[in-house]
Amino acid sequence: MTFSNNDPVNIAFADLNLHGIYISGSDGNAVVKLSSGYNICVPESLCTPAPERSTAQPPHTAAEPPKQDANLPLLSIISTGGTIASTVDYRTGAVSSKFTADDIIRSIPELAGIARYHTAQPFNILSENMNPAMWQELARAVRDEITAGATGVIVTHGTDTMLYSAAAVSFMLETPVPVIFVGAQRSADRPSSDNAMNAICSAKAAISDLGEVVVCMHATSDDVECALHRATRVRKNHTSRRDAFQSIGRAPVGMVSYPDGAVTLGKDTVLRGTRELRLFDRLDSHCGLLQYYPGMDPAVFDAFRGYAGLVIAGTGLGHVGTDCIAKIAALIAAGTFVVMTSQCQAGSVCDRVYETGRDLLDAGVVEGGSMLPEVALVKLMWVLGNATRREDAVRMMQTNLKGELDYDLWREM
Amino acid sequence: MTFSNNDPVNIAFADLNLHGIYISGSDGNAVVKLSSGYNICVPESLCTPAPERSTAQPPHTAAEPPKQDANLPLLSIISTGGTIASTVDYRTGAVSSKFTADDIIRSIPELAGIARYHTAQPFNILSENMNPAMWQELARAVRDEITAGATGVIVTHGTDTMLYSAAAVSFMLETPVPVIFVGAQRSADRPSSDNAMNAICSAKAAISDLGEVVVCMHATSDDVECALHRATRVRKNHTSRRDAFQSIGRAPVGMVSYPDGAVTLGKDTVLRGTRELRLFDRLDSHCGLLQYYPGMDPAVFDAFRGYAGLVIAGTGLGHVGTDCIAKIAALIAAGTFVVMTSQCQAGSVCDRVYETGRDLLDAGVVEGGSMLPEVALVKLMWVLGNATRREDAVRMMQTNLKGELDYDLWREM
Repeated sequence: MTFSNNDPVNIAFADLNLHGIYISGSDGNAVVKLSSGYNICVPESLCTPAPERSTAQPPHTAAEPPKQDANLPLLSIISTGGTIASTVDYRTGAVSSKFTADDIIRSIPELAGIARYHTAQPFNILSENMNPAMWQELARAVRDEITAGATGVIVTHGTDTMLYSAAAVSFMLETPVPVIFVGAQRSADRPSSDNAMNAICSAKAAISDLGEVVVCMHATSDDVECALHRATRVRKNHTSRRDAFQSIGRAPVGMVSYPDGAVTLGKDTVLRGTRELRLFDRLDSHCGLLQYYPGMDPAVFDAFRGYAGLVIAGTGLGHVGTDCIAKIAALIAAGTFVVMTSQCQAGSVCDRVYETGRDLLDAGVVEGGSMLPEVALVKLMWVLGNATRREDAVRMMQTNLKGELDYDLWREM
Repeated sequence: MTFSNNDPVNIAFADLNLHGIYISGSDGNAVVKLSSGYNICVPESLCTPAPERSTAQPPHTAAEPPKQDANLPLLSIISTGGTIASTVDYRTGAVSSKFTADDIIRSIPELAGIARYHTAQPFNILSENMNPAMWQELARAVRDEITAGATGVIVTHGTDTMLYSAAAVSFMLETPVPVIFVGAQRSADRPSSDNAMNAICSAKAAISDLGEVVVCMHATSDDVECALHRATRVRKNHTSRRDAFQSIGRAPVGMVSYPDGAVTLGKDTVLRGTRELRLFDRLDSHCGLLQYYPGMDPAVFDAFRGYAGLVIAGTGLGHVGTDCIAKIAALIAAGTFVVMTSQCQAGSVCDRVYETGRDLLDAGVVEGGSMLPEVALVKLMWVLGNATRREDAVRMMQTNLKGELDYDLWREM
């Protein structure tokens, strides 16, 4: 059985019967857009022709951009691309980034009731193409918007690397106002899109008493609240769920209920006005990240020779195979700053417990505490861009700067 | 304030007051053994001298090994080392592996009431030193024990790389009886040790109706039940918690309640006797794993030139920066089998949705579905050790062999 683009199909899987539109197929697998708006890849053998055609909902766009109310606070929306700014091309089933921040306001009229908006678009990319130079541009753009009077800043961003970018801006910028990273897991034209609710909650958070950099995404699979995750303690824990983002090792710093938009902040959340606006936008981007695995050839570490820094995601409390330690010691002796983190999602590294850990410490490896490996990478770029002496860099890596080392110690007992 | 080894100290942290024994310190950080038996690393500035000495509980060892009851079923315990077979050296605070399987039975007398035991110890290592050659030895040792008549096999293993080893044995061995990997997060001499309960639950699982390879560890932080995780869908999600192991994208295949030892199996769990004993112990261990991160120099991929296989942990649905695609295409053209997985903990990759994904497919990247990156690495070693043609390897990587591609699709809607 072969299908053509837009053919209605039924999918039988275990005790489940689904219905959708065939988008594309190869190697015996089909991509089907379900009537829920969700795309799935399934073996084509599970698909059978369906009699009726599914009705796909067209993208809703207002002809006129909404009027801005001069009495409302001024927010800035910085658009960088990603699904929240994208639609699906039904011909190929592929998603493309093509909306600007202006289009976002036009397509989500509720935003006009919350604030006035200034928009900026330093670049428009899929977030897997983000890089440290763009983080710097983004941090400068956020600084500029705050300087120009924004009550809060919303950064729309692809979800793939949002946690890296949010952490980077968090280290580079001291902010007196909320900086809200927001994305969408499903594009605006899909009935299950999280785009509008996430954007509305991000605007509510941006006019709230918050005073730090956070990620605002669906808290559960229902449309009832968004969570505000501290930028340095968040992960995208699912490839496609709307509630993919989760705080790691701590609770979210706030919640935004929907549709009423009430914002609740945690007791250790940084409040509006606590910090003065300052930008420290130097980075040393010549840093890498490497996960250890059993049987790893120690020569893999040679790929990072000459690097300023390397974060290792070791096993458990922060280990690698004994045969890798000499290579790591050589990197450190040649001037690479090496930080140990864990491939376990949560908890702290502690290299003083087991023998291989103590050998790593003797080699000069710096323990990354409870830092997520990705956050440790971003922080290392920032620290090595700002510290001139190794001992300062060690101290900064082990000092809790933006919540990256915050950890509910009492959860561990 | 400086402390010496064994000094009693108090730790004030937020609204929490802890008490413990100072073990060691460096760079301003202290390792303290809490009265709960848990070791923590904290800034030394949080520590103050405490008046009384904490009473550390000595390791409990029975003078006589327990009598084996000839009427009970025969289980095999294969000891490979790790915390479950270790004690703490109070002088250094460090953990060393020194118990044999015989010692485990001696120190956990309850085991003698469940079964008779045959023990084997192919090696005794910290699990970060495991490698594919040892997985093969281990699989052969398990096969030998089953051939010799074991009703079930218990493999004691360090927790750091237990998931890799369990997945490897799962791919290499068709087993008619339960093969239970078990470890401990805290050693036997510590009041909070999980060693005895995990071992007892693993013995109960090993005489149960189960017929597959699983990991048996604390299900919650209480001593009430252990979870049986399918070997190909489990992760160590915390560096130190006793309930660190979690099933990813599905429920555990079974539970063992404690102390009564009742075993409950799931409806899709493979039952005893379903499969015949067969060993396929070929591996091509020349495979690597690499996590993509923003700003990655594409030259990092050169470290894997000449490899038989490479698993990439991409972002989101399975992406890397566009500038890496040419390097990946060159690896594939030179004969490296490249599999894409996601650094998101759960969900499936789908490279047909976004542009960079389609470019990866055009380059010859094989989608890893919902496989965990570590499991995809182990499976790739096994597939490349057994398949002779690329098309066979592609088909095997995308076929659900041991539950590695099982995924609760309906959780995604």
